[in-house]
Amino acid sequence: MKTILIIGIGAGNPEHITIQAVNALNRVDVFFIMDKGEAKGSMIDLRRDICARFITANRKYRFATAQSPQWDRHSGEYNAVIGGLNSDKQAVFEQMIAGEMQDGETAGVLVWGDPSLYDSTIRIMTDIAAAGRQAITYDVIPGISSLHALTAQHRTTLNTVGQPVEITTGRRLTEGGFPPRTDSVFVMLDGDETYRHFAEDDSLDIYWGAYVGTPDEILIAGRLKDVAGQIAQARAAAKKTHGWIMDSYLLRRRRQKD
Amino acid sequence: MKTILIIGIGAGNPEHITIQAVNALNRVDVFFIMDKGEAKGSMIDLRRDICARFITANRKYRFATAQSPQWDRHSGEYNAVIGGLNSDKQAVFEQMIAGEMQDGETAGVLVWGDPSLYDSTIRIMTDIAAAGRQAITYDVIPGISSLHALTAQHRTTLNTVGQPVEITTGRRLTEGGFPPRTDSVFVMLDGDETYRHFAEDDSLDIYWGAYVGTPDEILIAGRLKDVAGQIAQARAAAKKTHGWIMDSYLLRRRRQKD
Repeated sequence: MKTILIIGIGAGNPEHITIQAVNALNRVDVFFIMDKGEAKGSMIDLRRDICARFITANRKYRFATAQSPQWDRHSGEYNAVIGGLNSDKQAVFEQMIAGEMQDGETAGVLVWGDPSLYDSTIRIMTDIAAAGRQAITYDVIPGISSLHALTAQHRTTLNTVGQPVEITTGRRLTEGGFPPRTDSVFVMLDGDETYRHFAEDDSLDIYWGAYVGTPDEILIAGRLKDVAGQIAQARAAAKKTHGWIMDSYLLRRRRQKD
Repeated sequence: MKTILIIGIGAGNPEHITIQAVNALNRVDVFFIMDKGEAKGSMIDLRRDICARFITANRKYRFATAQSPQWDRHSGEYNAVIGGLNSDKQAVFEQMIAGEMQDGETAGVLVWGDPSLYDSTIRIMTDIAAAGRQAITYDVIPGISSLHALTAQHRTTLNTVGQPVEITTGRRLTEGGFPPRTDSVFVMLDGDETYRHFAEDDSLDIYWGAYVGTPDEILIAGRLKDVAGQIAQARAAAKKTHGWIMDSYLLRRRRQKD
């Protein structure tokens, strides 16, 4: 039997890591890393830094790196593209499990934020275990997600008193509009700056952040109408400087009395 | 100036605590504890255990305990009751800041889960700072919320591929029904077992947990129709044994092809 630990490592600040995750890191023989290409190289370096910092100095561990499958997200219907991508990723993980681990060993997959939120690793390991070609067991160690990292840095809450919150993607927000039954919407995976579609809505506030918890962190908050342009500028400049951007935001509808 | 640190300590497992939170605990001179009565005494003990375990042995710190204001949640309109309760809590915190801290000291408020989610501490400190009677600054340290703790224990995701998630309360779910635009709903603060209203809906799965991450943890998952009765029984028995219960659950609508 081989063991896979899917470890949430937090949203960018290395100190987001939990004691449970540190203990998990120290059980790992081999870390699986999916290399998504040069632009995100600094994300791989951050993973190696976390291992170097939190794994007991005299413990031996190794890295196994594979090229992450690449699919053009605009090459077909969204679910079909993601399904194809995840099927390819599953094949890569199965090859690593077969070729890079001995029986009885433990592998670790380090996931930014929390593994439950817009990440495919849990689904892939569930499918590998179900397929039965590899005898694996797997566990999930929760992490600080960007939901909690962003609101903490802005010192605001995710929900207003007793109200629901919707977590969604830029694509879904574009399709469905602002959800009618919530006043708070947390948006992730939004390369298209969907907040700009709502910039004429005078009742909305935004809490935006990029590279949250890292030395490159940028935070902007205020009335959406007033700060949308500033966010777009900061976002474009940061993307140019770093070659990539990881951002998220909370949109909140003010009550009429406010 | 006095500093207040609002520290998320995770959803029950002491090892959910982050390195950032451990460092914050070690800056605190006085921990403010709101005593909510005997039934939740073990929650206070858990807080003291966390301090004893993670604060460097030779560092001095103290506790200041106040009786938490009690409001009957059924005594009036929900927002009015919560508003009154939080206003009373604000007064208690202001008294503790005035009477239990010296200028230049740091106080800590330990919050279960993450401080952004269905917790009033951030709002109260924002209001105290704005009122200006006490010169305070405050910071928020994110924690593992029950969103991530529960899904990790069930080894499932919060969202399905590319789809939104609604986080809500039992009360709101009763009022609004299952949200039409999401297939995943995470329910917190549900003393009324609202999932039972949906037990005839054959397309729903449930992932339920109580005391998640603690030695008393109970996890039940399956087709809602099949396990709703089992959850109700387990919940009633656990509430009787422990005198209180803290539970949450994820409802997920299966797609037709599944």
